[in-house]
Amino acid sequence: MAPQYAPSLRGRLPPLALLLETIFIVLFAFLVEYEEAEIIKENPVTHIYAEFQDVQVMVFLGFGFLATFLLRYSFSSSGFNLLVASLAVQWAILLNGFLFSFHHGKIRVGMKSLAEANLCAASALISMGAVLGKTNPVQLLLMALLEVLGFTANRWILQTWFKVQLVDSIMLLHIFGAYFGVMMSWILFRSGLEPRHEKERSDRKTDLFSMIGTLFLWMFWPSFNSIMISQSLPGRKLSAICSTYLSLASSAVGAFAFSVVTSPRGKINKVHIQNASLAGGVAVGVAVSAIDMPWIAMVIGLAAGLISSLGFRYIKPNMKFLFKCHDTCGVLSVHGMPGFLGWVAHFIIHLSQSSSVKEMQNFAVHHLYTLLVTLSVSILFGAFTGFLLKWRLWRPPQDKKCFDDQAFWEFQFLAVHM
Amino acid sequence: MAPQYAPSLRGRLPPLALLLETIFIVLFAFLVEYEEAEIIKENPVTHIYAEFQDVQVMVFLGFGFLATFLLRYSFSSSGFNLLVASLAVQWAILLNGFLFSFHHGKIRVGMKSLAEANLCAASALISMGAVLGKTNPVQLLLMALLEVLGFTANRWILQTWFKVQLVDSIMLLHIFGAYFGVMMSWILFRSGLEPRHEKERSDRKTDLFSMIGTLFLWMFWPSFNSIMISQSLPGRKLSAICSTYLSLASSAVGAFAFSVVTSPRGKINKVHIQNASLAGGVAVGVAVSAIDMPWIAMVIGLAAGLISSLGFRYIKPNMKFLFKCHDTCGVLSVHGMPGFLGWVAHFIIHLSQSSSVKEMQNFAVHHLYTLLVTLSVSILFGAFTGFLLKWRLWRPPQDKKCFDDQAFWEFQFLAVHM
Amino acid sequence: MAPQYAPSLRGRLPPLALLLETIFIVLFAFLVEYEEAEIIKENPVTHIYAEFQDVQVMVFLGFGFLATFLLRYSFSSSGFNLLVASLAVQWAILLNGFLFSFHHGKIRVGMKSLAEANLCAASALISMGAVLGKTNPVQLLLMALLEVLGFTANRWILQTWFKVQLVDSIMLLHIFGAYFGVMMSWILFRSGLEPRHEKERSDRKTDLFSMIGTLFLWMFWPSFNSIMISQSLPGRKLSAICSTYLSLASSAVGAFAFSVVTSPRGKINKVHIQNASLAGGVAVGVAVSAIDMPWIAMVIGLAAGLISSLGFRYIKPNMKFLFKCHDTCGVLSVHGMPGFLGWVAHFIIHLSQSSSVKEMQNFAVHHLYTLLVTLSVSILFGAFTGFLLKWRLWRPPQDKKCFDDQAFWEFQFLAVHM
Repeated sequence: MAPQYAPSLRGRLPPLALLLETIFIVLFAFLVEYEEAEIIKENPVTHIYAEFQDVQVMVFLGFGFLATFLLRYSFSSSGFNLLVASLAVQWAILLNGFLFSFHHGKIRVGMKSLAEANLCAASALISMGAVLGKTNPVQLLLMALLEVLGFTANRWILQTWFKVQLVDSIMLLHIFGAYFGVMMSWILFRSGLEPRHEKERSDRKTDLFSMIGTLFLWMFWPSFNSIMISQSLPGRKLSAICSTYLSLASSAVGAFAFSVVTSPRGKINKVHIQNASLAGGVAVGVAVSAIDMPWIAMVIGLAAGLISSLGFRYIKPNMKFLFKCHDTCGVLSVHGMPGFLGWVAHFIIHLSQSSSVKEMQNFAVHHLYTLLVTLSVSILFGAFTGFLLKWRLWRPPQDKKCFDDQAFWEFQFLAVHM
Repeated sequence: MAPQYAPSLRGRLPPLALLLETIFIVLFAFLVEYEEAEIIKENPVTHIYAEFQDVQVMVFLGFGFLATFLLRYSFSSSGFNLLVASLAVQWAILLNGFLFSFHHGKIRVGMKSLAEANLCAASALISMGAVLGKTNPVQLLLMALLEVLGFTANRWILQTWFKVQLVDSIMLLHIFGAYFGVMMSWILFRSGLEPRHEKERSDRKTDLFSMIGTLFLWMFWPSFNSIMISQSLPGRKLSAICSTYLSLASSAVGAFAFSVVTSPRGKINKVHIQNASLAGGVAVGVAVSAIDMPWIAMVIGLAAGLISSLGFRYIKPNMKFLFKCHDTCGVLSVHGMPGFLGWVAHFIIHLSQSSSVKEMQNFAVHHLYTLLVTLSVSILFGAFTGFLLKWRLWRPPQDKKCFDDQAFWEFQFLAVHM
Repeated sequence: MAPQYAPSLRGRLPPLALLLETIFIVLFAFLVEYEEAEIIKENPVTHIYAEFQDVQVMVFLGFGFLATFLLRYSFSSSGFNLLVASLAVQWAILLNGFLFSFHHGKIRVGMKSLAEANLCAASALISMGAVLGKTNPVQLLLMALLEVLGFTANRWILQTWFKVQLVDSIMLLHIFGAYFGVMMSWILFRSGLEPRHEKERSDRKTDLFSMIGTLFLWMFWPSFNSIMISQSLPGRKLSAICSTYLSLASSAVGAFAFSVVTSPRGKINKVHIQNASLAGGVAVGVAVSAIDMPWIAMVIGLAAGLISSLGFRYIKPNMKFLFKCHDTCGVLSVHGMPGFLGWVAHFIIHLSQSSSVKEMQNFAVHHLYTLLVTLSVSILFGAFTGFLLKWRLWRPPQDKKCFDDQAFWEFQFLAVHM
């Protein structure tokens, strides 16, 4: 007879989590120190502290609550987001330090490295969105380790071999995270969940919780796109902040307009608002180093809102039937396609500003390689991760326990709260 | 036979929203540029970035979630707030730039202009509170355009003809927004919604969502009142922050006390706490340039808590019967009357500090004109907007579809979330 | 016959709240002024403004919403938190000013004093967590007055007689608040509420509201631990921020791992995640001036997560039966024990860095006295407060009205919202 209960996490989650934490502590003990006082005096904490906290809110609350729309899975959405992000940032501090700022056997941690680690964790959380509800936290932790490793490796390739700037390489996190996630989700496809899982739905209140996540992502996105731009380039920093702000405003307008246009009965779809409003931040982020006029940011934002709404209306539901790929949070439509749009925008802006055909050719080849490398590494790592997670060893929840907190969380609502 | 369904938004909302966005993009393309690097070096982004983000949270999350108390209208409250604010800020950037900082045919956008635009959007969101639930998003967008236009025109009159300071003129947003909204709501009065609309109510959970809005407004109000004060006046900035903080604390105490005193059974009314706690921020804002002692701010806060609680207890329910005016969010009691209190406080403080009768007379006349002009412009624009929105062309929801998300949003709670 | 309704607050709450507010206003009028412009120029508002706002979010939203898990008590949790904190900060400004910065009969208020007052209010809110649901707001206000008085007196003793640093003394707020609260709760124990009160439970949605509180506390804790460290010690400030961040990350990992390990069916307990994730912030806070390496912070965080989870699993339920002490929010496990762990960590780190046995002895005695004094003052004040609050004069709610908003709040969910 089939098991009645979801598999216990007891033999898998605590050993893995504690093992990882212990390894991180040991590595930190040997390798990591705080920045020295002289360096901090040049770059005072206050310079990016407000931005850093905004990014932290996006990573820990924004992504977590955006995914709470799932009616019976909101503990897992917000809780696993905290668990995965907590381990991913530690792992990212180590990898970033090791690959990009390893001096005399030491990694120096400061505000900038914490911010960078938060952005790397964000790329893992995007991937998580594609498989949410169909995996257990053990699988999610393994996924995060591989995703952050792949993303950092990709950045290292781009920065070292292709001389891509730090800001440009790290903002590819949307593209990397989305295609990694979609690839992984494709391999982990379960026909048992189709055509529809009865628990994969929302109600008024969970959609409002999700709206809190949306709004914090929306409001703090200017910090996300500007935090890695050096304080010594104040003009670039200001234009990143303002461009993101204006782009988000026009993508919110676009989300409302295109949602109604594509609705047979002329109504707004809540999911479009929750997600497509954010597409402008994604697209501007990928193109942030090329945007120097407000109207360009607004055009990109509006186009991103359009693409993302169309993705949710037409691509997401058909992906399941045509490609056997189920993308829980629609990361392809929020991060994948708008990220690609940002890449195209960067391409066009740069070409239009080039002074010679030679320069145009060079840039075109270079920019194309950047995308191809990122897509290849992302899809490769995503596929590998998918196959690894398919292993029954990790004890994923049964089909009927998917999208259900009861598989992982103690429920005692009728008992005292203790 | 009467129509069963609310009118479709398809023929109205997308054309209007996309037309506005396109016009804004074209105007931005010709008129708007980012601030130049030299100016940014003098006023680094970091100077007001944290305050700016606080104000953004107030505008996009605070106002939106404060209004989510309506049980069946919480998607609309939070969603339309995002839509209206997104367009209002773009419109405000253009108007402010055109009227106050138009040099050589260009508007320069920086942190300060974004902050200013956010405050102007806030004044439109206050007006929106008066008609929430009884209008559709097309009407709300038109309302926002006219409100921001009227508010900016009023500021231009005050600053140009009456030499009112920037901070004093912009803080009249509470008075302007409230009386504009109440006037508009009076003209849009529908007898079909009285004496009570069955859907105009809250439950435990929606009131908690509303409390999130309240708290973010409450916590970040010091930024709202201090952001337009120049960094070169650190003493004034500090006193604005501290005064707002202390005033809010005492108005929260006042809200609890006066709510219980006026309750026959000695209980607290949640609506008073959600709203009257904020009255201290409003009142101190309007008087911010005159307050130089902590205790004065606390007295103003306590009085504002009193006035606002009494307004919710006695004025709001009677306005419907006596004046045929329905004010959904009670903006008269949160912004209108406490704003007037702030004006009076400013008056008294200034008079008490005057050295001569001549000076007192001059100030009294000047201060009175400021109020009369603001009230006149606000009521005039509000009345005009009300008549414009009454036009059936905009297809407002039927009476029985008021306060109901189903008029505007797709519902598929029993289907998969996609 | 027993009374059907909870006692009215009308004769108690408004007089007390208004009396306190009036006394505070009078004292502020005579004693308090804003900082002078010269001092502000040296310490610009912007230096700690972002941190200050973070701390405000923790105090007013974080603590308030963390306690909204109680199904029928969420208005009270969030509302009374606002009321108590509003009065506690004003009281703390006066006490701190009077004891620590009284010059020429004046208290100067600036960003630093507001931040300090917020931290003192936090200590009162911790104590409140132990008696939440079993007291009325009148009792909570009296409790807050005495708690802040006791905590400030304890700080004065430590800083004046034992030459303890400001940062070290104020961070004892966790230990002080927790043992004060537990002591008070022990004395206020009501056998009528045991073994279980039917209303002391949560549901999916209230647990999500509580998670919002958790996450804001979690994300902004670095500001809580670093805000009292002077800007002139940038290295110390950075290490406080990073240590708190890393400690929280590892205590979140620990909370998940230990929650599953101690669960018979291998599931996660939501209460552990909501609370034990924060234990790392508490422990690092108490030891913040001694931690200079990232790995030490991570070890402390992991240990705090362990202790706190075990506390919730084994100590909290047994405290009721063994010691007749009911601790609603588990402040012993979130603040009490992790705070003690932080004290021990501080002890060990300092001893391991001492150069001579003499120095070790001196420090050991000194550090032990610090703890003993704090515990003594805390327990003494807690006991006194408990006996005072037991007085029937304050009209506490009947046993069956405990954990129930209906004892204090007007309910009109079926009527219009006005």
